[in-house]
Amino acid sequence: MKKYALVLLFGLFALQQLYAVPDSTVLHVQLNKIGLEFYLDEVGRPVYTLSFGKEKVLNPSVLGFEFTDGTGFNKSLKLTGTSRRSVNEQWKPVWGESNQIRNHYEELKVQLQQQEKPFRKINLIFRVFEDGLGFRYEFPKQVDLKYFVVSRELTEFNMTADHKAFWIPGDYDTNEYSYTTSALSEVDAWAVQNKATDIAVRIVPDQYAVQTPLMLKSAKGLYINIHEAALVNYPAMQLHVDRSHFKLSANLVPDALGNKAYLHAPFSTPWRTVIVSDHAEDILASKMILNLNEPSTIKETNWIKPMKFVGVWWEMQTGKSTWSYASSLDSVNTNGELIPSGKHGANTNNVKRYIDFAAKNGIEGVLVEGWNTGWEDWFGNWKENVFDFVTPYPDFDVRAIADYAHSKGIKMIMHNETSGSATTYERYLDTAFRFMNKYAYPAVKTGYVGKIIPRGEHHDGQWMVNHYERVAQKAAEYKVMLDSHEPNRPTGLHRTYPNWMAYESGRGNEYNAFSNGNHLDHETILPFTRLMGGPMDYTPGIFKLKGYAQADSKRQVHSTLAKQLALYITIYSPLQMVADLPENYENYPDAFEFIKHVAVDWDETKILEAEPGSYISIARKAKGKEEWFIGTITNENSREMVVRMNFLDKGKKYLATIYRDGDKAHWKNNPESYKIDEVKIDASSVLKLRLAEGGGAAIEIRCLSVK
Amino acid sequence: MKKYALVLLFGLFALQQLYAVPDSTVLHVQLNKIGLEFYLDEVGRPVYTLSFGKEKVLNPSVLGFEFTDGTGFNKSLKLTGTSRRSVNEQWKPVWGESNQIRNHYEELKVQLQQQEKPFRKINLIFRVFEDGLGFRYEFPKQVDLKYFVVSRELTEFNMTADHKAFWIPGDYDTNEYSYTTSALSEVDAWAVQNKATDIAVRIVPDQYAVQTPLMLKSAKGLYINIHEAALVNYPAMQLHVDRSHFKLSANLVPDALGNKAYLHAPFSTPWRTVIVSDHAEDILASKMILNLNEPSTIKETNWIKPMKFVGVWWEMQTGKSTWSYASSLDSVNTNGELIPSGKHGANTNNVKRYIDFAAKNGIEGVLVEGWNTGWEDWFGNWKENVFDFVTPYPDFDVRAIADYAHSKGIKMIMHNETSGSATTYERYLDTAFRFMNKYAYPAVKTGYVGKIIPRGEHHDGQWMVNHYERVAQKAAEYKVMLDSHEPNRPTGLHRTYPNWMAYESGRGNEYNAFSNGNHLDHETILPFTRLMGGPMDYTPGIFKLKGYAQADSKRQVHSTLAKQLALYITIYSPLQMVADLPENYENYPDAFEFIKHVAVDWDETKILEAEPGSYISIARKAKGKEEWFIGTITNENSREMVVRMNFLDKGKKYLATIYRDGDKAHWKNNPESYKIDEVKIDASSVLKLRLAEGGGAAIEIRCLSVK
Repeated sequence: MKKYALVLLFGLFALQQLYAVPDSTVLHVQLNKIGLEFYLDEVGRPVYTLSFGKEKVLNPSVLGFEFTDGTGFNKSLKLTGTSRRSVNEQWKPVWGESNQIRNHYEELKVQLQQQEKPFRKINLIFRVFEDGLGFRYEFPKQVDLKYFVVSRELTEFNMTADHKAFWIPGDYDTNEYSYTTSALSEVDAWAVQNKATDIAVRIVPDQYAVQTPLMLKSAKGLYINIHEAALVNYPAMQLHVDRSHFKLSANLVPDALGNKAYLHAPFSTPWRTVIVSDHAEDILASKMILNLNEPSTIKETNWIKPMKFVGVWWEMQTGKSTWSYASSLDSVNTNGELIPSGKHGANTNNVKRYIDFAAKNGIEGVLVEGWNTGWEDWFGNWKENVFDFVTPYPDFDVRAIADYAHSKGIKMIMHNETSGSATTYERYLDTAFRFMNKYAYPAVKTGYVGKIIPRGEHHDGQWMVNHYERVAQKAAEYKVMLDSHEPNRPTGLHRTYPNWMAYESGRGNEYNAFSNGNHLDHETILPFTRLMGGPMDYTPGIFKLKGYAQADSKRQVHSTLAKQLALYITIYSPLQMVADLPENYENYPDAFEFIKHVAVDWDETKILEAEPGSYISIARKAKGKEEWFIGTITNENSREMVVRMNFLDKGKKYLATIYRDGDKAHWKNNPESYKIDEVKIDASSVLKLRLAEGGGAAIEIRCLSVK
Repeated sequence: MKKYALVLLFGLFALQQLYAVPDSTVLHVQLNKIGLEFYLDEVGRPVYTLSFGKEKVLNPSVLGFEFTDGTGFNKSLKLTGTSRRSVNEQWKPVWGESNQIRNHYEELKVQLQQQEKPFRKINLIFRVFEDGLGFRYEFPKQVDLKYFVVSRELTEFNMTADHKAFWIPGDYDTNEYSYTTSALSEVDAWAVQNKATDIAVRIVPDQYAVQTPLMLKSAKGLYINIHEAALVNYPAMQLHVDRSHFKLSANLVPDALGNKAYLHAPFSTPWRTVIVSDHAEDILASKMILNLNEPSTIKETNWIKPMKFVGVWWEMQTGKSTWSYASSLDSVNTNGELIPSGKHGANTNNVKRYIDFAAKNGIEGVLVEGWNTGWEDWFGNWKENVFDFVTPYPDFDVRAIADYAHSKGIKMIMHNETSGSATTYERYLDTAFRFMNKYAYPAVKTGYVGKIIPRGEHHDGQWMVNHYERVAQKAAEYKVMLDSHEPNRPTGLHRTYPNWMAYESGRGNEYNAFSNGNHLDHETILPFTRLMGGPMDYTPGIFKLKGYAQADSKRQVHSTLAKQLALYITIYSPLQMVADLPENYENYPDAFEFIKHVAVDWDETKILEAEPGSYISIARKAKGKEEWFIGTITNENSREMVVRMNFLDKGKKYLATIYRDGDKAHWKNNPESYKIDEVKIDASSVLKLRLAEGGGAAIEIRCLSVK
């Protein structure tokens, strides 16, 4: 801290008449390689730095707040107390990538107070983990700070250099962009926004703002991930990029009036997280964000069950059938009743076909979209009253379908599209969940396509953040699992609400159906970005990779078939869709075996190899079974992946079924070529797998030894 | 129309290249004294005028619309068709000031179309009544106009001179101002707003905007009232005053983004109403606004019953007790439970005292405010989650009170204060009404004190207008009568929703409790303004007129006791509060007899004499009875009111019980002085009553003849 002492010496005489002599205390916290420093700067602002071993991760970065009334915590603070504690504990998630999670950190709580009237207090809580830093602001209960409105959070993350960044624009309403890989100095959110014409609603007021989780890589090989944990009653944090100085600073998503957060002390902000390592695999393995969330509020959890599901869905995405019953609202007969177009996907017979397919193949769930009235005129008009969440189209027999599913042991998954009208959904919420209970739907997929109502609110603002949480709470009350589409991106709240199984909040496989699709490196970046906060309902498993789109016969998925299988492992979700049409799976029954077998809940996960934008290999052990599944994927480049089986139990014998790209497979011209090999292996085995361009491989490993 | 023809001649050559030759058709509608003219002006804008006999009421006034996308209906329209019809019918309201209502009008429908692409269509529907004009815009179903957002409604009401106006500021969030009487040229809403410090939330962006109903009086003695009817899915209309030219133009209350109305064709706007007469009494007698509303949507109405009610309420308003249970949220014991302050009004014993009082005096209902948790911290912080509408304070035994009320034949009235958080109320709405049904509350008083959530929305904007209507619909679904406090002012929707008994939406008697009170002319203006759209829960009947306010011992109600009795007749409401404390009524048991007897539903109403700002005399015949009640009030001046009994049945004998000001009564120094006389009268009788300064008189008339 010598150089700061020097600054202090020069600045001291000038400042001491304005402020009490600044407290030159520098507080340190170290856990293994992660080091934090905290101090107050010469004008009394909180500052922190972060290091990894001898490497600086963050240059001195200011913390603080400004409120709409002109006050705040942005100067003239003094240190009034500190406290420390160490935590090293294990806890068991209801479901997850592993069956227990270690929570190991050193905590420093810093108590600060204004040196001037009204002497308001703010605390900073830092938790240094083995794999990074989490910190939050705490506004303690106090006489002179009760209700306040945040105009700006001043949190900085000041990078040491012009790192490589994997980013999407800081959009207030969508996370569904393709990722751009560029230096921080090259970030231009508007350029990306302008080109993203396949996303209907795009609001990016700051040209240099990016969304979190933001993945960075330094020239020296440090991997840095910035996000937040436990986003509750607060807007999502995006990051403004100072392209000249590589300073990142918090950008909170505003409400209709430009205000950021309406708060009431005592209040704690979400945790700001910096995960850092010199190995990319550690980023994916990090449990910091989950650890920073509160334990489950749901006591009895036996109704929460991960599952795979098929859906009357891809056929609408590809244009084979429609969500709507009639071709338009104007298509009515003389009684004013809608005239069926004949293309409605969610008709009773078709739904039964999916139920049959699921039952035959041991897939637990069936999602049906477009089952309820409203789809003729649901999108793009900022219309408040679209869906009522309980009225089926005439050709969708709710009772018959519920009974048929029950007779086949199939769980129906409800679909509640809100068209962005959160006010309407809240009005019907109890009614909608009672309807699910009545017809025994154990899960719901929600949707928020379009501009939000209340008008002027954004998907990622405080009001909507509260809305999504309310829906999760209401779902828990009715014992319904939740899969949220188009909400803000997750921040680990599935620990607190284990019925909140998955979010979309990112660019899913569906873009391959209705747009020009996803980049070849997309799925190698998603786990480092979107998935850091929680599972993603990406909808993998497309087998018909070309010629499926009614709108454009040349459209294709940027993937091989084997890569689609691998995604069941590399893109984690406890609700995992089997997204393609039954008839397309029936064309490749041997490859479909992998999807039938793959687990959705895990005892253990090993990140074998990973590099954002390039490749990912992950091995997972199925919950309660002696079975492992491995997924490995590459980007546009073919690659030889070396998979060491040293995670297997020594002395046991295993049979590995390898679903790999055919020798001449290529995402562009030969995507559906694959080969299935069986080999006996043990812990000493090393498999070498050639992944095609845009390819991947999936392995199922069963233990042959008797226990 | 000569002078317009002249303008056309001069302008024609210049314009004809831009526009087709304007249609010089002038359309006329006349019914008795009311005359309407309609034509398109030289640039193709719709224009109308209005006359009363030979008097012009409105100079040529433009109509039209502008939309947020830059299009609209503000020029270049052509007449494509007209249709006319006559209606003269009677209908029976579920309750009201009379048991049947005549609906007599001449209708002109004008079909207009743009002369340029996209050739959109708009219709104007004018209804000329015997007492004025109603008109609305209709956007018919058409290919090129589906969803649109209104930025401006261009409707003008152009006065012929600098009339005297009875006005309150065009505030987006409150109608609770005292009225100002001034020339139109002297309207200054900001000056009034600045002084109205007893109103917490005041938003008046336009210095020259006034609220409707606006009451005007011309120097020639014409009375003109401007308001609107059937405000549905649209913002409230205020009026911008051009102080130089006496032009009034529509100001629609915006949403958080400044937009006015989100519409979807086919759509009809609310009716704009101009009621006009050379007799002020005709303004009060007008049923035009009710006639312009749709008939009842409620089929079975036997559960809708007007009633009087007492309430645990005035004691909180005056500071004798509190809504809250504890003195503050910080007043908690070691278990975190609130410590009772001992001042909580809504405790079981006190409520039973009111139930006893009501039962003893034949008053049907008991309202209790402050019964539910949240009042320690409910106001002024734009806090979203305050009340849950179902959780009582520990000292309010819902079940015991419900049972006790039932045993005494008393109806409990629910209180749902939202603190402006409409989003929260909508979330709990079903729960709240189920709670009312469970405990047999047949009515609810809602409240919207404070700034609205969704933040940025206003009490009088489209979203809230829809909210209030949704609450009325939901109330009807649960067979609950509604008394809305702090919504937008009514527009006759109680015809469509006869369970929507009353609104506050104005400056009630309560201001006499907690502020410096209401002007002495206040109640002589209210019927000409606020009450034009519907009944007001004004809460009359204060007997202790001085020394009741804990905060200020000098505070007094600006009224005599006899005037308080008269208000039961002059301020119409089917839910009429008996607002003072039981003990204050017990001090004047003979005067209280009038309140016990006065009806709340009527077969017939006669406006005997009225002049806004000065006096009002009204006689009403009780529903299904041979009983008349008369109320007569004055302003700050004493007055001799001459009441001719010629509305009584000829040949019958009646007993009139007259509750009048004492001979030396005066609102300031001797307000509680009154005298009760009994006289036998018949249809030929003429009573002369001296009203004190700030005084009034109430008369109960019973028929002595056997039928």
